[in-house]
Amino acid sequence: MGLIVQKFGGTSVGSTERIQHVANRVIQEVEQGNQVVVVVSAMGKTTDELVRLAGEITSKPSKREMDMLLTTGEQVTISLLTMALQEKGYDATSYTGWQAGICTEAQHGNARITKINEQAIAGRLKENHIVVVAGFQGMSEDNSITTLGRGGSDTTAVALAAALKADKCDIYTDVTGVFTTDPRYVQGARKLQSISYDEMLELANLGAGVLHPRAVEFAKNYQVPLEVRSSLVLERGTIVEEEVSMEQNLVVRGIAFEDNISRVTIEGLNNELQTLSTIFTALAKEHVNVDIIIQNVTSDNRLSISFSIKTEDTDTTLSVLAQLKEVVGHKKVEHERGLAKVSIVGSGMISNPGVAADMFEVLAVEEIEVKMVSTSEIKVSTVVPHKDMVKAVETLHTAFELEEQDIYQVQK
Amino acid sequence: MGLIVQKFGGTSVGSTERIQHVANRVIQEVEQGNQVVVVVSAMGKTTDELVRLAGEITSKPSKREMDMLLTTGEQVTISLLTMALQEKGYDATSYTGWQAGICTEAQHGNARITKINEQAIAGRLKENHIVVVAGFQGMSEDNSITTLGRGGSDTTAVALAAALKADKCDIYTDVTGVFTTDPRYVQGARKLQSISYDEMLELANLGAGVLHPRAVEFAKNYQVPLEVRSSLVLERGTIVEEEVSMEQNLVVRGIAFEDNISRVTIEGLNNELQTLSTIFTALAKEHVNVDIIIQNVTSDNRLSISFSIKTEDTDTTLSVLAQLKEVVGHKKVEHERGLAKVSIVGSGMISNPGVAADMFEVLAVEEIEVKMVSTSEIKVSTVVPHKDMVKAVETLHTAFELEEQDIYQVQK
Repeated sequence: MGLIVQKFGGTSVGSTERIQHVANRVIQEVEQGNQVVVVVSAMGKTTDELVRLAGEITSKPSKREMDMLLTTGEQVTISLLTMALQEKGYDATSYTGWQAGICTEAQHGNARITKINEQAIAGRLKENHIVVVAGFQGMSEDNSITTLGRGGSDTTAVALAAALKADKCDIYTDVTGVFTTDPRYVQGARKLQSISYDEMLELANLGAGVLHPRAVEFAKNYQVPLEVRSSLVLERGTIVEEEVSMEQNLVVRGIAFEDNISRVTIEGLNNELQTLSTIFTALAKEHVNVDIIIQNVTSDNRLSISFSIKTEDTDTTLSVLAQLKEVVGHKKVEHERGLAKVSIVGSGMISNPGVAADMFEVLAVEEIEVKMVSTSEIKVSTVVPHKDMVKAVETLHTAFELEEQDIYQVQK
Repeated sequence: MGLIVQKFGGTSVGSTERIQHVANRVIQEVEQGNQVVVVVSAMGKTTDELVRLAGEITSKPSKREMDMLLTTGEQVTISLLTMALQEKGYDATSYTGWQAGICTEAQHGNARITKINEQAIAGRLKENHIVVVAGFQGMSEDNSITTLGRGGSDTTAVALAAALKADKCDIYTDVTGVFTTDPRYVQGARKLQSISYDEMLELANLGAGVLHPRAVEFAKNYQVPLEVRSSLVLERGTIVEEEVSMEQNLVVRGIAFEDNISRVTIEGLNNELQTLSTIFTALAKEHVNVDIIIQNVTSDNRLSISFSIKTEDTDTTLSVLAQLKEVVGHKKVEHERGLAKVSIVGSGMISNPGVAADMFEVLAVEEIEVKMVSTSEIKVSTVVPHKDMVKAVETLHTAFELEEQDIYQVQK
C-alpha cells in the first residue's frame, strides 16, 4: 500500500466518456490498495473556448482576469471526475488549487509554487477518500487565483507528490513514455525504461515536450520518482528518477530537436564589462528568449557575439539591437532564419569526452553544416539548417545505436 | 456620490455583446461619481450546459460537486465583465464568492449566508476600482464552495449592499419593474413606483418571480433600499423600501398567481398533539413543500386537515400519507389536482378588514369556486380551479382598480 499522485492532461479528460475512463484508471490503483491523489487539466478544447470568449471582449486582457477565467476549466474537470468516482461507488472529494493549499507568487499567468499547505488533502486521504485536485492553478498571498503557466498541471502533480511524500507520481499522457527521439519523425525511436532527472531536464528543455522542465526540476529537488505513461494503453512507461538502473551505461539516451530557430551575430562591439548585460537585459525586457550564446574577442580587441532565438522573435531582436547601437557600439548585425537545433543528451557523456566529436563527425559525413555549438555536461546542442534537421536526428539516432536495446559505447 | 450595488442576471450577461452593454451601464453610474459593486450571474445557457455535462456522468451528482461545477459559470462572467471594464479604461477587479468574503452554511445547493468579510472589497473600492463579484456562491467553514440556491445572485447583491452599507441596490432584470400583476396575462397590469418590503415579500413568495424572497427578507432586515429595473430600457424601475411614499394608501398593491397546485384533504385523524407534526415532518423529509394548511376539529372529535402542494409532489404526498395511516389513524385521504392560487397583496389591508370579503364577492360574481383560503395581515390567498385562474386575476385587477394610477378605497 502506498500513496500515488496521478496526473491526467487535457486530452485524457477531453470528454465525459474519457473522464469515465480516467475514473476507471484511478480505481485500478485504489483497488490495489493505494491511496490516490488525481491532478487534472481542463477538458480538451475548454481553454481555447475561454480564450476565444476573452478575445471577443478585449485584445489585451489583464493577466489576473485571464487566470480567473481559465481556472474555471480545471474546476469543471475536477467536479465531473469526482462525480464519476462517486457514481462508481468510491468516496472522492474535489479541490481547486487554492483549496488544495497551493500557494504561489503573485505572477499571474506564470506563477511559481512557493508553498503547499497539504493538511486539507492529507486529512481527506486519511478518511480513505480519493482526492481530485485542479492542476495548473494556485493562490497568491492576496487571495488572487493564479496559474502556473505552461506545463502547470505536471508541476501541480509533482509538487503535491513532494508535499504529501507520495511514493510515486504518474504522469499520464498520450504517448507511452519518453522516447530516444520523437517517433513521429524517426521510425527507430524507442521507448526508454528509465531516465535520470538531469537527462529528462535537458530533454524537456530541448523541446521533447512530454514533461515540463519545471515539473522535472521540482521532482529532482524533492526526489519524487516520476513515471511517464499512457492513459490509453496499459503498459509500463518510462521511470524518471535519480539512479537509472537498467540502462545505466547508455552514453546518449535521447535526441531532442526543435525548429524555427534564428541565429543573430553582432560584430565589433565595445569590449566593455557592461556590453553583454546591456544587450541581454534589453532583450529580456522585450520577452525575447535567448537560448545558445557564444562570445568571442577578435584580434582588434572588439567583441563578437552570436546567439540563437525563436524565429518569431527575430524582428523584435533586430529592433532592440538597432536602438542599442550607440551604447554598445556594434559595427555589424547579421541574422539567419530557417535553422533548427539538434541535441544529444545522456549523463554518460560526463565520463566520455569524445561524444561531441563523434556527433560532429556524423554530421560532417552527412554534409550537414553546423552553425553553432553549445555543450553542457550531459548534452551537446548543434544548430543546423532546418532542411537538414530530420536527417541529422535520424543519422545520429542510428550512429549512437539508440534503436538497440543494447548500449552504445564510445570507441576509444 | 454614493455606493451602489448593481446586480445583473443571466439573461443580461448572456453573450459577450451583452456583457459589453452591462459594462456601459456600470460605467454610467461611475461617471455620475458613484462607487460601484457589480454582482453577476452565469451567462445565459452556461448553467444548463454544465448540468448536461454532469448528467452524462451521473443521474445523482453529489451536491458538493454540483456546487463546484456550477460556480464556474459566474467565475467566467466576472472575469469577462472585468476585462470589458478594463478595456473601456476603468480600474476593475473580479472576486469569486469566497474571495468576496461571503461565508455560508455548509448546506450545498441551498446555503444561507452567515457572514460577509467585506474588507477585501472595501479596500478595492477605496482604490477607486469597480468591484465585480460572482453572485450565487460562497464558502462554508471548511473551505468548500457553496451555492445559495434559487435567487442566489439577488441575495448576494443585497447582502453585499448591507455589509458595505451601500446607498442602494439595483436589481437589473428583463422587466422594467414590479407590476400590479403579470403583464403577460393581464393587459392592464401597471408598473408600481414603489412597494414595501413586506408587500414585495408576499408577492415574491407568491411566485411573482421578479425578486427572490430571501433577497427581499435580507433587504428588509438590513433596510437596504432596492430598485428593480430593466437592463435594456433606460427608465426608473420600482423602489422597494420600508416607507412607500407615492402610493401610500393603495390597499391592494398587486395580484400574484401560480398554477400547478394540488389540494390534499385528510379526514378522521386522531386528535392528538403529535398528529400535525408527524404528518408535516414526514412530508418535509421527502422535500414536499406544503403551502396553505387548514385544520378543523369535527364534531366526533376527529381532526380534519387540508393543505396545498405543488402538483408534482402529489404522488409522493399520497404515499407518505399511506405509510402514516397506522400512526395518525386517518379515515380518508382525498386529493384534487388542476388548481391554482390567486392572491391579493397590500399593506393597506391591515387597516381595511373588508378587503377579503370584497375579494370573495368579486370571485362569486364570476362564479369562480374558492377551494381554500389563507390570509396574512397584508395578503389574501385563494385556491381556485386552474381554468379560472386568469379570469380571477383579471377581474380582481379591475375590481381593485389596479389599472388606475389613482387609489382604490374600500367602500365601507
